[in-house]
Amino acid sequence: MSNQINSSIGKLALKLILANSEELEPIYKQLNDNGFKYCVGKTGSMEMQKVVSAIETAAKRNNLVKESLYRELHALYHAILEAIQGVTRGQTQLKDVQRTVGLTFSVVRGKPYANEDEGEWIAVALYGTIGPPIRGLEHETAGLGINHI
Amino acid sequence: MSNQINSSIGKLALKLILANSEELEPIYKQLNDNGFKYCVGKTGSMEMQKVVSAIETAAKRNNLVKESLYRELHALYHAILEAIQGVTRGQTQLKDVQRTVGLTFSVVRGKPYANEDEGEWIAVALYGTIGPPIRGLEHETAGLGINHI
Amino acid sequence: MSNQINSSIGKLALKLILANSEELEPIYKQLNDNGFKYCVGKTGSMEMQKVVSAIETAAKRNNLVKESLYRELHALYHAILEAIQGVTRGQTQLKDVQRTVGLTFSVVRGKPYANEDEGEWIAVALYGTIGPPIRGLEHETAGLGINHI
Amino acid sequence: MSNQINSSIGKLALKLILANSEELEPIYKQLNDNGFKYCVGKTGSMEMQKVVSAIETAAKRNNLVKESLYRELHALYHAILEAIQGVTRGQTQLKDVQRTVGLTFSVVRGKPYANEDEGEWIAVALYGTIGPPIRGLEHETAGLGINHI
Amino acid sequence: MSNQINSSIGKLALKLILANSEELEPIYKQLNDNGFKYCVGKTGSMEMQKVVSAIETAAKRNNLVKESLYRELHALYHAILEAIQGVTRGQTQLKDVQRTVGLTFSVVRGKPYANEDEGEWIAVALYGTIGPPIRGLEHETAGLGINHI
Amino acid sequence: MSNQINSSIGKLALKLILANSEELEPIYKQLNDNGFKYCVGKTGSMEMQKVVSAIETAAKRNNLVKESLYRELHALYHAILEAIQGVTRGQTQLKDVQRTVGLTFSVVRGKPYANEDEGEWIAVALYGTIGPPIRGLEHETAGLGINHI
Repeated sequence: MSNQINSSIGKLALKLILANSEELEPIYKQLNDNGFKYCVGKTGSMEMQKVVSAIETAAKRNNLVKESLYRELHALYHAILEAIQGVTRGQTQLKDVQRTVGLTFSVVRGKPYANEDEGEWIAVALYGTIGPPIRGLEHETAGLGINHI
Repeated sequence: MSNQINSSIGKLALKLILANSEELEPIYKQLNDNGFKYCVGKTGSMEMQKVVSAIETAAKRNNLVKESLYRELHALYHAILEAIQGVTRGQTQLKDVQRTVGLTFSVVRGKPYANEDEGEWIAVALYGTIGPPIRGLEHETAGLGINHI
Repeated sequence: MSNQINSSIGKLALKLILANSEELEPIYKQLNDNGFKYCVGKTGSMEMQKVVSAIETAAKRNNLVKESLYRELHALYHAILEAIQGVTRGQTQLKDVQRTVGLTFSVVRGKPYANEDEGEWIAVALYGTIGPPIRGLEHETAGLGINHI
Repeated sequence: MSNQINSSIGKLALKLILANSEELEPIYKQLNDNGFKYCVGKTGSMEMQKVVSAIETAAKRNNLVKESLYRELHALYHAILEAIQGVTRGQTQLKDVQRTVGLTFSVVRGKPYANEDEGEWIAVALYGTIGPPIRGLEHETAGLGINHI
Repeated sequence: MSNQINSSIGKLALKLILANSEELEPIYKQLNDNGFKYCVGKTGSMEMQKVVSAIETAAKRNNLVKESLYRELHALYHAILEAIQGVTRGQTQLKDVQRTVGLTFSVVRGKPYANEDEGEWIAVALYGTIGPPIRGLEHETAGLGINHI
Repeated sequence: MSNQINSSIGKLALKLILANSEELEPIYKQLNDNGFKYCVGKTGSMEMQKVVSAIETAAKRNNLVKESLYRELHALYHAILEAIQGVTRGQTQLKDVQRTVGLTFSVVRGKPYANEDEGEWIAVALYGTIGPPIRGLEHETAGLGINHI
């Protein structure tokens, strides 16, 4: 089957941010075995644009996307927005609806399909907490965005 | 800190559906150690209401919610809808926008906060594929919904 | 102040469907004193288009809008959709997200502004229950849409 | 029928803010007869978070929710957001889309179902005006959110 | 057929902002032949309210709407918001999701239907670029809103 | 400036469906001069999925996308959905909200940026009418979606 998913780029992106430290080794191995490039980071804000910006900056600094190539930034941007929709569930808003997030994110880039022609894809995974801007008053949240790049 | 998250009900719900079979044992242990009740299932459809219905039915059959208590169904329902927003990222629609999903889901119920007064919460996690109704033409998708119950 | 609201067309539309039978007399009086035309009806369905259609039909039959004039149907239609957004709160969907509504509706048409040039406006108010398609498992819901006509 | 709605918490929340002063007495009586706790307030802003915050603060000060209990704030928060969706009809935005609101709000807490096990629910009702930030250029708007607490 | 569209107010609004300078003459002629009033302008911002405001101001200054008549501003406002939904495609947000727009806009007012009773309508067309706030990293975007006035 | 837009793929996609027959020649020339591939078609339905499907089918039959390559279908699909958001302005729904569309569509594929590394992009433009399912009761609507491919 030429188009079957060979390795789960989204699952690995999620596991990367959900794993306890002792669980990370086999995940790194899988990422490397698949030739996937990745980075992990943290961001927290009431300003959505700071969340977007933190992920974009990390992806650029880790050479997951070429800073000067709009094509790649466009692919990354839509993957970020899709992941944010999972996090915000209904309104892609934070401060405006009186809430804040504390997130761990991962960006993974590689070829997830058996068919070489499917080329590279990018996954953005988010996991953390969301709630009013008062420590402890929060619950967990997650999101996953995937795009061709 | 009375309100700190003691055990991550959402993280466990996600890990439960992302884990390979050899990774499941420690997750089951954590769920049991926390006194969390849970179930896992699969659903696939172009009809969103079948996805909602499959998760509701599984949660009822596994006694995660009381079938006759609207209070509990209401809590579960909104957790399901929030998880679906992560899966559908923008339009909570499947057939209408010409796409289908194949999902593994988990429902976890328990007390995630150190403060006993925070009571029980419910997490719904979704992971699988989304795409046009043609096998192999699809990418991964995920969602997480959390509610007090 | 030329543009001040003289009589609250939206408030009257809402009161008309929230009132107990003994509270209706003064509401009818206020509607008549303001020269407002109105109708009240009931609709219940899992199909959103039946809800839209029931309100449109009632408004036409009661001569609140001219059936052959798109201008008036357009004004009514957007007022209905806005009221439905209050009822559905996030997804303007019923069956697709496994829920049904039982609604009382009112449509009120008239001149709510002191300034004669503001002309006629139309209000659509909705009140009833929403929930899974199981009797009794439901909570209340409401919506209000207002448009110039 | 064990789950039937015994007393309409949402209807009372709406009537509380729609009533003229002479209509309030029987509404207070109904609220008290049902053992419902409630508060009423006013808020106006181009900043959505101020609207959210004003309602949260009123509910806390009137002991409708426990300030330190995330469970209760979470229930209230989602009821507020649902009511705001009725008010904003499509975009939960004010300043960003160049409009402002002047709202009266009510929060009502109690047991609306005949079945004791259904426990407490919370209703948030909003009624007022929305429009560009110019006095008099505005029309009415309303919303209702209901959640288990 | 009394309600057929006689002249395409929306098509002319779009052509007005898509035309090269040598293509404008026949468009102006069509607008004038139909008795349509129109204006064209430019606006660019990360703040959505500035986009809304720029179009409103141009329409007022060119006497396409009466500044003191809420009825007309309400019709224009909803046409603007609808056009913005075409431009933003999913979230009516700019700065919050880390993007900016550079837009040409047109507002056209007139009677597009053969049936005189259909009266006046207003069209708002937008065309330009959207992208991160870095020059050159952007793609095209467009929107059209139409309302009775 | 390496990333500047060299030729406006979206503007050409829109002009292609807005042009009168005598205006088409220079548009075809521009498309050909830029090496853009394109197709034009018509679709009308109350079923959104038929609209999506008609555009996908036309793009495949005209070799604008490779039928077996998910990468290309994914790029096209999101461009279609974005264009539909312009057409539906708020709810990506037709029959559910009691309306139908009659649309002309174009799909254009090519290299719009001066920088060769930006590669190929795809534009989907829509123009036509939307309204209740009664002939003549409708107004114009348009949308544009653009994606890297």
